[in-house]
Amino acid sequence: MSKLLISIAMEAEAAPLISALNLSPSTSLFPKALPFLSYEGENLTLITSGKDSVTGVDNVGTVPAALMVSHALSTGDYGTVVNCGTCGGFIKRGMSIGSVMIPSVGAFHDRRIVIPGTKFEEYGVGKREVTNAKADLVRSSLGYVGGCCTSGDSLDHVSTDDTQMDANEAVAKDMEFASIAQVCSLYDVDLVGVKVVTDLVDGDKPSFEEFMENLGTAAKSLQETIPRVIEVLKK
Amino acid sequence: MSKLLISIAMEAEAAPLISALNLSPSTSLFPKALPFLSYEGENLTLITSGKDSVTGVDNVGTVPAALMVSHALSTGDYGTVVNCGTCGGFIKRGMSIGSVMIPSVGAFHDRRIVIPGTKFEEYGVGKREVTNAKADLVRSSLGYVGGCCTSGDSLDHVSTDDTQMDANEAVAKDMEFASIAQVCSLYDVDLVGVKVVTDLVDGDKPSFEEFMENLGTAAKSLQETIPRVIEVLKK
Repeated sequence: MSKLLISIAMEAEAAPLISALNLSPSTSLFPKALPFLSYEGENLTLITSGKDSVTGVDNVGTVPAALMVSHALSTGDYGTVVNCGTCGGFIKRGMSIGSVMIPSVGAFHDRRIVIPGTKFEEYGVGKREVTNAKADLVRSSLGYVGGCCTSGDSLDHVSTDDTQMDANEAVAKDMEFASIAQVCSLYDVDLVGVKVVTDLVDGDKPSFEEFMENLGTAAKSLQETIPRVIEVLKK
Repeated sequence: MSKLLISIAMEAEAAPLISALNLSPSTSLFPKALPFLSYEGENLTLITSGKDSVTGVDNVGTVPAALMVSHALSTGDYGTVVNCGTCGGFIKRGMSIGSVMIPSVGAFHDRRIVIPGTKFEEYGVGKREVTNAKADLVRSSLGYVGGCCTSGDSLDHVSTDDTQMDANEAVAKDMEFASIAQVCSLYDVDLVGVKVVTDLVDGDKPSFEEFMENLGTAAKSLQETIPRVIEVLKK
């Protein structure tokens, strides 16, 4: 089994898992200038995006996600990236609060670059198939669904986002997965996403209310799910 | 004079400059997995974002910009980053086609993360003051204006973008600067932006028409402007 790199954006999502897996902090993985944190365990490294120095909040979003995974992959010998986190789920594609999905596609919904006669529009959407034997095995062993995880840098979604999320046939919506899928594609490393639904994108409540209500529950669900995913990947 | 790192997203923007400065391709700066290109000259390195392997277009946008600058800064000893490129300009803040501006602020306009009681909204906007003696000197020596360069991953702008661009008091709009400003802030490296207006954000024409019409002219303008900026920075 090659070494696993587990990437999680938010500390609240990662904390129970760091404890459950009995991981130790490490300081050697990233350039000192970067705020990302890493924790070492048996044949795995867990990385989180750290805090923004200006606001003190977690470094969520597509830019920190790409930076932390790229810097980690450029320095360590990892065979598989496991990107875990919360997501919004689409009722119309069978998701409910607490559902787990293992994405088979990553794509963006908030990068509109329409220049007729060029492929910039397709570039902006940045669709990447995330198909590999490991993700397939996790999905079939644990009974989770696949489908597209659509990513963007906003918690809410405006009508242009809705249009693109529909075009992406999104099952889940997050702020990191598509970006990490692109980086893993560049490094030719397998990616397994583990996304737990905290809020319903096509439901009635504002995202942030459901998100805050369910973040603790989702963190616990991740704590239960990820060790099972790791077990499957170790086989 | 410390070594300069000149970052330019698009090949069409960089090509005349690579020729004018007589730069030589180099392969050692980036991890092999990454598509970015680097060119060496006298006490300076020029980096461009390379092409997307799926669509063949330039890797524009906030994610590749952060990745290429962070990887370059993590491996090289650079004292100043010069981020050059085209931008949209705001008529209401005095910009016209061909105007050059040297940003004093970077901020995002398409990252809406409103979670009441937290600082995630401020985090999303990600405003960074870009104030340093080098940028001031370039501005005063060459007679260019400052102000905010607002960044996002779309060429167009929807109404939520307009609202945030107004709040940012944007003079220019691009797809990279705010992201690079954050990376330079992390590495504590001075940043000088050089932005040439190809299209008018608050004008009548669709952005992409003006952008394509004026890209060649802007590349020539950059070719004339950047050597003058370098001269000032060498003093």
